[in-house]
Amino acid sequence: MTVEIVDFESRVLRGNPLGDPIVRRTPVYLPPSYPKRRYPVYYMLTGFTGFGEMQIQRGAWSESLPERLDRLIGEKKMAEAIVVMPDCFTRYGGSQYLNSTATGRYEDHLIRELVPFVDDRYPTTRRRAVLGKSSGGYGAMVLGMRHPEVFQALACHSGDLYFEYCYLPDFPKAIDLLRKHGGLAPFLKAWEKMPKRMAGNLHAAVNTLAMASCYSPRGRGFDLPFDLGTGEMRADVWKRWKAWDPIEMLDRYARNLKKLKCVFIDCGTRDQFALHHGARIFVAKARRLGIRPVHEEFDDDHSSISYRYDRSFAVLSKALSGSA
Amino acid sequence: MTVEIVDFESRVLRGNPLGDPIVRRTPVYLPPSYPKRRYPVYYMLTGFTGFGEMQIQRGAWSESLPERLDRLIGEKKMAEAIVVMPDCFTRYGGSQYLNSTATGRYEDHLIRELVPFVDDRYPTTRRRAVLGKSSGGYGAMVLGMRHPEVFQALACHSGDLYFEYCYLPDFPKAIDLLRKHGGLAPFLKAWEKMPKRMAGNLHAAVNTLAMASCYSPRGRGFDLPFDLGTGEMRADVWKRWKAWDPIEMLDRYARNLKKLKCVFIDCGTRDQFALHHGARIFVAKARRLGIRPVHEEFDDDHSSISYRYDRSFAVLSKALSGSA
Amino acid sequence: MTVEIVDFESRVLRGNPLGDPIVRRTPVYLPPSYPKRRYPVYYMLTGFTGFGEMQIQRGAWSESLPERLDRLIGEKKMAEAIVVMPDCFTRYGGSQYLNSTATGRYEDHLIRELVPFVDDRYPTTRRRAVLGKSSGGYGAMVLGMRHPEVFQALACHSGDLYFEYCYLPDFPKAIDLLRKHGGLAPFLKAWEKMPKRMAGNLHAAVNTLAMASCYSPRGRGFDLPFDLGTGEMRADVWKRWKAWDPIEMLDRYARNLKKLKCVFIDCGTRDQFALHHGARIFVAKARRLGIRPVHEEFDDDHSSISYRYDRSFAVLSKALSGSA
Amino acid sequence: MTVEIVDFESRVLRGNPLGDPIVRRTPVYLPPSYPKRRYPVYYMLTGFTGFGEMQIQRGAWSESLPERLDRLIGEKKMAEAIVVMPDCFTRYGGSQYLNSTATGRYEDHLIRELVPFVDDRYPTTRRRAVLGKSSGGYGAMVLGMRHPEVFQALACHSGDLYFEYCYLPDFPKAIDLLRKHGGLAPFLKAWEKMPKRMAGNLHAAVNTLAMASCYSPRGRGFDLPFDLGTGEMRADVWKRWKAWDPIEMLDRYARNLKKLKCVFIDCGTRDQFALHHGARIFVAKARRLGIRPVHEEFDDDHSSISYRYDRSFAVLSKALSGSA
Repeated sequence: MTVEIVDFESRVLRGNPLGDPIVRRTPVYLPPSYPKRRYPVYYMLTGFTGFGEMQIQRGAWSESLPERLDRLIGEKKMAEAIVVMPDCFTRYGGSQYLNSTATGRYEDHLIRELVPFVDDRYPTTRRRAVLGKSSGGYGAMVLGMRHPEVFQALACHSGDLYFEYCYLPDFPKAIDLLRKHGGLAPFLKAWEKMPKRMAGNLHAAVNTLAMASCYSPRGRGFDLPFDLGTGEMRADVWKRWKAWDPIEMLDRYARNLKKLKCVFIDCGTRDQFALHHGARIFVAKARRLGIRPVHEEFDDDHSSISYRYDRSFAVLSKALSGSA
Repeated sequence: MTVEIVDFESRVLRGNPLGDPIVRRTPVYLPPSYPKRRYPVYYMLTGFTGFGEMQIQRGAWSESLPERLDRLIGEKKMAEAIVVMPDCFTRYGGSQYLNSTATGRYEDHLIRELVPFVDDRYPTTRRRAVLGKSSGGYGAMVLGMRHPEVFQALACHSGDLYFEYCYLPDFPKAIDLLRKHGGLAPFLKAWEKMPKRMAGNLHAAVNTLAMASCYSPRGRGFDLPFDLGTGEMRADVWKRWKAWDPIEMLDRYARNLKKLKCVFIDCGTRDQFALHHGARIFVAKARRLGIRPVHEEFDDDHSSISYRYDRSFAVLSKALSGSA
Repeated sequence: MTVEIVDFESRVLRGNPLGDPIVRRTPVYLPPSYPKRRYPVYYMLTGFTGFGEMQIQRGAWSESLPERLDRLIGEKKMAEAIVVMPDCFTRYGGSQYLNSTATGRYEDHLIRELVPFVDDRYPTTRRRAVLGKSSGGYGAMVLGMRHPEVFQALACHSGDLYFEYCYLPDFPKAIDLLRKHGGLAPFLKAWEKMPKRMAGNLHAAVNTLAMASCYSPRGRGFDLPFDLGTGEMRADVWKRWKAWDPIEMLDRYARNLKKLKCVFIDCGTRDQFALHHGARIFVAKARRLGIRPVHEEFDDDHSSISYRYDRSFAVLSKALSGSA
Repeated sequence: MTVEIVDFESRVLRGNPLGDPIVRRTPVYLPPSYPKRRYPVYYMLTGFTGFGEMQIQRGAWSESLPERLDRLIGEKKMAEAIVVMPDCFTRYGGSQYLNSTATGRYEDHLIRELVPFVDDRYPTTRRRAVLGKSSGGYGAMVLGMRHPEVFQALACHSGDLYFEYCYLPDFPKAIDLLRKHGGLAPFLKAWEKMPKRMAGNLHAAVNTLAMASCYSPRGRGFDLPFDLGTGEMRADVWKRWKAWDPIEMLDRYARNLKKLKCVFIDCGTRDQFALHHGARIFVAKARRLGIRPVHEEFDDDHSSISYRYDRSFAVLSKALSGSA
């Protein structure tokens, strides 16, 4: 198994407002026959609080991504490929793979930096797919929508869709916690010193803040989607969030999605964040708009579902090769 | 302690679409000096799945409502009063104390039937307050808003306010359950045979259906606030729900609320249904509109908080007597 | 439906150490043909924190015990009977229907006071069964074991059996809470002022104390089954507890149980307190000792399972009548 | 930062009954000045389902062990040291660092293979400490007890102590799951195919089986501490388990522990597995036996408490150096 650990020095992340690292550790999986041929490239995006290096870590009874790829290729379930594992982590836990004045230019890092770098350094076919789970599934969907010239296929596993169901229910909990700390700034200050930054009810608050940093930035800071005084939702900020909901984005990007050879979307029917509903709503609207996504559901929840990559790599591989 | 159990035969509930009883057991608490004077009257509304008779039941280590009233009066914390405990239960668990073509005319039952009956049968001062917790707090607020000629004061404990936070997060769970049963009709059929109608994840589904029967009736049935096929919210139905959110109703009923001597509203700051946020949003808006609610918060959640009645009876009693 | 509410003044409870009431409200269900014949008598025991009067309360979508009895008799599923609903509640939540120097003589109250009173006041056949759920199931089992001359049949629903599984896991939680309050006495003092005496993690502590008051009394107080300083179990106290575990009691009372016409025992296979294991262990040992219990399991947990009384009344009724 | 990844080929694990790997990936942290001096050596043991390599993985907002060591050494909170991260994982999730005919000779692997190897390959002072958390804390305690000639100090963080509280409450859940699958063998067969081997209620069952494989082996298999038919505990097997409870082991190993320069033991006071009670019981008994453990408690639970290593490394470092 060959994995190159690329410590990529980003230009677009220089001076990013959160002081996050410029050098991003980006593992690159190289297939068995490497470098004898040209290979398609997959960009594998991690979920919230994840980064590329995590994909090569082994756990109890679980495969690392490189182990999985070796197996899938060995079993002829996918064609040989290069798989890039970007690091778009931020101080708040994640960038949603977007450009934001509050976090940095992570979309640019991926599209303008990593993709050219990979094509330059490795023998690629210039065929590319983007995939991921949860926030990584969101990123795959949005990057696929916005860059059909870069990606020919995408797979969105349990991705953040339909913000009414996946984000809104966290707001009251986030408000409670922020108020308990005396507001946003004191919360962040306290939080950065906590040894356990996601324990107990912290997830709702941290996820909400992180999403605000991506969806409703204001200069180097961001607007919260609610009034901290009363807790009432702020319609204007919420509208800015919803403009980044792939279900609303369909209105603007349907034409792009139609260019893709494959839009794969799946979700467990017991997803704790109700993302299976988001997937269904997305798929129904996409079909009305003439897109033909592959939609699958499975009997599981949001956790530890990397076994679903077996399926998406197979589908994406066929799509990319079918395009030859 | 004297409690009369009135089995009230309603006219307005005749032929109600759910086949719910016409005769409603309505306990009436009579104070120690009864019937020597005239007394103010309180209408105490129960929460979802409750009915008046439950208020006179004793539990382990807890007072029944009559015991509480005897104590409060004995301790001079409130003036002697008659307290009426209506039964507005429906097959779905509750009526929200509204008229609905899908459930029956429960608002009319209270305002047009019970109030005149009580004034006719008992020596009353014609001063009245309405109060309750949860759905009962909702009912108190809405009846107070709509009938300032009937009630001079109201107390809304942990009432259903700001439907975005208290109802919307249940929708995905309700959809999951309804789909699992094959739709609304098969779910209802199965549910009516279940020995445990609120176990596990049933609450989200049953509460959602019950609220739809109150807020978005359609003839003898009702519209769900979401599309069962995809799970997407139905904007038109949601708008009908929101028209019954006291926070929106403020725009129409602020003038009425101003007529009241007391609008008391409280909530625990750890309310599981996020109703403390609803209370804050309501109060902030009410104040902007010139209303002066009494707003209290306490360190507790939504369960077993009947000790808060000690506070509301004291406040309401002062308000009603101050009006003398 | 006829229910007589008997306010029974106990002699044996006079001067009980907890200052609990001497007068015990004891509802007595009388069957449709009453008083034309003689009837068998059932003693229905409530679970922890319950008392007889609760059995006649109606809830949402649920039958009270008298409603259930009317239905079962009407459907010929059981013969007409008198059903007595004793109150053996204590300040700590329950007496386990035992005599204890720390709580009072509740076994005597039942056997020496209530049974003769009922036979004296009502037309009975002198055939009797005892049944109940949870701590009431425990009580039924123990009273049946110890008084085969009084009861010819018993039904133990989800009863406290095999203390290793049903009580022991609560000890660490109880210790944590007692220590947090500074010990047993300060805890009890604080607890008696709490508006919500079973909220959160209180159940483990309160149940443990209450059981200690029944199983390991010491004068008017009781021994805890663990050392509060370290948390270590006290082997001597635990042995005293185990002497009251019906599974150990079998060694002493097997002969008595064999005299009964029916020993019915059931439990849900998802019982939160693992009582289905206790039932199985009891039944296996009982069979080894030549007893023939009726053992049933059902797919449910410990809560809201009063529908199981349909089954036990049918079985007990047949047993009592078969003895004619 | 220097970490050598040693792929150690074990002799003692050859032919282990579970077919687990012979080659064990064992990261070795080397301090900044390496190899200029001789260094003490720490053996850091992971908890259940962990293995050495996990200690060098980075997470969101958390240090890897090498990063932690670099920081602690840089801040002069501990002296420079070599830290070895053994892999004693088994197919069932862990070996408890014991020899067992059912799993393999993991104690021997550590004591007879790794320790000599490390002393041979690296410049060491021959001063050694063993530490770990949870099952790793257990391992540290037991290895320290049994090999005072090897280790001069130990730190047991939230270690498995007092099996009555930390293991016994899992038994009913384990029994339920094993029965559901039709017994031990079918469970294991199904489990090995599950994509999520610790989801839901699996932890109780898997942990119980794994502990049985360590504490009550029988040839290449193991005895369960309960009868699967009834669920009753097997006193003989339980006794074998308890013989491995460090609290019982104290009777045999107190003399050894007294030889150590430092026995550090801590636990969070909200430990989900009640291990803070185990720590207290151990410490009280150890003191009675003349041992002077350092005992600390902190306000946290069992999860994500690696920040406690800051404390133990400081204490152990002082102990090892104080011995110079």
